[in-house]
Amino acid sequence: MTSKINKKIGILGGGQLGKMLCQAGSKFHLNLHILEKNADCPASAVCTVFSHGDITNYDDVIQFGKTLDILTIEIENVNIHALEDLEKLGVKVYPQPAVINIIKDKGLQKEFYKQNNFPTSDFILKPNADEIRFAINNGELTFPFVQKSRTEGYDGKGVQVINNSDDLKNLLDTPSVCEKLVDIKYEISVIVARNPSREVSSFPIVGMEFHPTANLVEFLYCPIDLNENLVHLAKKTAIDVANSLDIVGLLAVEMFVDINAELWINEVAPRPHNSGHHTIEANYCSQYEQHIRCLLNWPLGDTSAHHAAVMINLLGESGQAGPTCYEGLDDILKMKGVYPHLYGKKTTQSFRKMGHVTIIDKEIQAAIETANLIKEKIKVIANC
Amino acid sequence: MTSKINKKIGILGGGQLGKMLCQAGSKFHLNLHILEKNADCPASAVCTVFSHGDITNYDDVIQFGKTLDILTIEIENVNIHALEDLEKLGVKVYPQPAVINIIKDKGLQKEFYKQNNFPTSDFILKPNADEIRFAINNGELTFPFVQKSRTEGYDGKGVQVINNSDDLKNLLDTPSVCEKLVDIKYEISVIVARNPSREVSSFPIVGMEFHPTANLVEFLYCPIDLNENLVHLAKKTAIDVANSLDIVGLLAVEMFVDINAELWINEVAPRPHNSGHHTIEANYCSQYEQHIRCLLNWPLGDTSAHHAAVMINLLGESGQAGPTCYEGLDDILKMKGVYPHLYGKKTTQSFRKMGHVTIIDKEIQAAIETANLIKEKIKVIANC
Repeated sequence: MTSKINKKIGILGGGQLGKMLCQAGSKFHLNLHILEKNADCPASAVCTVFSHGDITNYDDVIQFGKTLDILTIEIENVNIHALEDLEKLGVKVYPQPAVINIIKDKGLQKEFYKQNNFPTSDFILKPNADEIRFAINNGELTFPFVQKSRTEGYDGKGVQVINNSDDLKNLLDTPSVCEKLVDIKYEISVIVARNPSREVSSFPIVGMEFHPTANLVEFLYCPIDLNENLVHLAKKTAIDVANSLDIVGLLAVEMFVDINAELWINEVAPRPHNSGHHTIEANYCSQYEQHIRCLLNWPLGDTSAHHAAVMINLLGESGQAGPTCYEGLDDILKMKGVYPHLYGKKTTQSFRKMGHVTIIDKEIQAAIETANLIKEKIKVIANC
Repeated sequence: MTSKINKKIGILGGGQLGKMLCQAGSKFHLNLHILEKNADCPASAVCTVFSHGDITNYDDVIQFGKTLDILTIEIENVNIHALEDLEKLGVKVYPQPAVINIIKDKGLQKEFYKQNNFPTSDFILKPNADEIRFAINNGELTFPFVQKSRTEGYDGKGVQVINNSDDLKNLLDTPSVCEKLVDIKYEISVIVARNPSREVSSFPIVGMEFHPTANLVEFLYCPIDLNENLVHLAKKTAIDVANSLDIVGLLAVEMFVDINAELWINEVAPRPHNSGHHTIEANYCSQYEQHIRCLLNWPLGDTSAHHAAVMINLLGESGQAGPTCYEGLDDILKMKGVYPHLYGKKTTQSFRKMGHVTIIDKEIQAAIETANLIKEKIKVIANC
């Protein structure tokens, strides 16, 4: 087969995920276009063409997409109607608008799991805070439960545990999923990739530890020590979800393992995911290259890991806002197998994702020890 | 130590080496400026700022460099006078103009080795073809010898073996180094890095096999099976040359091992080098990131390899010229541990460097076998 490799590929969103997609694509010198409101965004410096516009605006997305061959996303909050119309015009949109539509609404997502008999915790959908209170009062809902905003939730925002009637004052007044709290032993993630030829592949399971205050993944590790049946079930479940959705591209499937070793799907993301950053250094093919292979209907890459890995998110220090400054970078640059990725955001805020550090080692325990050292050394602060 | 990471770094030249420097820098979101005549060059899509201009032109280089903090090169053929003046203006120029000046003239390079007692084959310098013929006639020079153009030589051009009087008709009429032909058993390369704090580090030794017609490195492998003394001597020699030059940045030291296991310096390059492409995938720190660490006076990275590697240059097929087209890319994308890098040059020519493929494996023999398969599968041709 011969190829010119001249397809025009667009990405809606220019954050760090868009940036890392561009970095993976630049190895093949792909023609990568970014649409984003903020010209100073992480991806703007590494994309082929930067276009200024709002990914939630119909006209902006149509204008951007209509001259492209392939369109993808780095965030779900995009104008779906525009994507549907671009698909009709012959632009290949991966993931497909119908898939994004289900996933971006956590209510539709939960209903999808239920209809397809995937394990997910019991839930009810409510349009606002009053209806949630009413459900509590009439016994339809019991404490504790998790309130998740159906849309607009991102990076831990829009999700909270409601433990008792005192917490009800914190209820978000928004269309919500109210779901049974799982007694979590582990949070895990499996990233699946599917290309248009329906070739499917999954990355090794990663364990996720969350930041207690920010409700963001703070610490990720791979491999995770799970029993063989659970490994098999988690991979199979993730692949089955991807196949049921018929998605083209990456699907990150976040799951809970409860204290009884039962598996529950938490939520999915139809794009590169925080839980796959480490694949850049630790795996033969990264999640970013894999997504690009999906877009171009290339053979999928080898997802196996050649190193154990830990990933730490670099969050802006709590209470600091202003021009970005890195403390302790020199110290961690001296350490072997340590890979800082800085997203280039000009200003920092409390808990803003400013970068990440991947640590690779032969054994996971050694990587975890290095990661614990690093967490103490590097900080993102405001002003130098 | 705190840092804003806001230094402006310029690179003279926008070819594949400039591109891969930008790719390494983008992990840290560095502010990378490229100066290059050709706006369609490999680096233009991945640099932060592209400037159009001639790197051999005094005014263009001054204009480009005067607003920068740090300036480096990806090719030696640059305007040295401008670099000297920029250095006086306070711009940090790495490698230093004085070092580039010695290295870009193969005559001065050879004299440097001689003056500093580094092993290099005997040579004489001659200003033109007539003087070379005269040296043959009077017995100052004997067949066979190698004629190397003192300047302008690049990618195998300007270098030829003169075996006998018949070959004299091919003499280049240019200032030349005429050197004794070494009876080569191996060609090897050691890439050394030095930062402004004089921290020094070297990459593992690589073996190079040349393309018989194009006189270009076609096949590179690491590790190479050499005896311990020779390994020690080659590393020490490379580091000693870097220290003697007092270079800041990378220095690739190409050496011959002759049939008597003697070591000879062939030539050096003060920049990232073809013989270090594989370090992107096979080593903890790549040559490109290492060069950037030198520029910023960061601690040097770990140069050790975690995989055996072979690198194949993707040269334009002989006799073909026109719009670039890749044949067999699909086939090699299916193979594990295989990393194609496409430089994005819009047109191909006979033996033009269009990309490279790195193959990594646990054992070098397995990587060599895969590389031999790949050489048969992938071709860069004109028109699809």
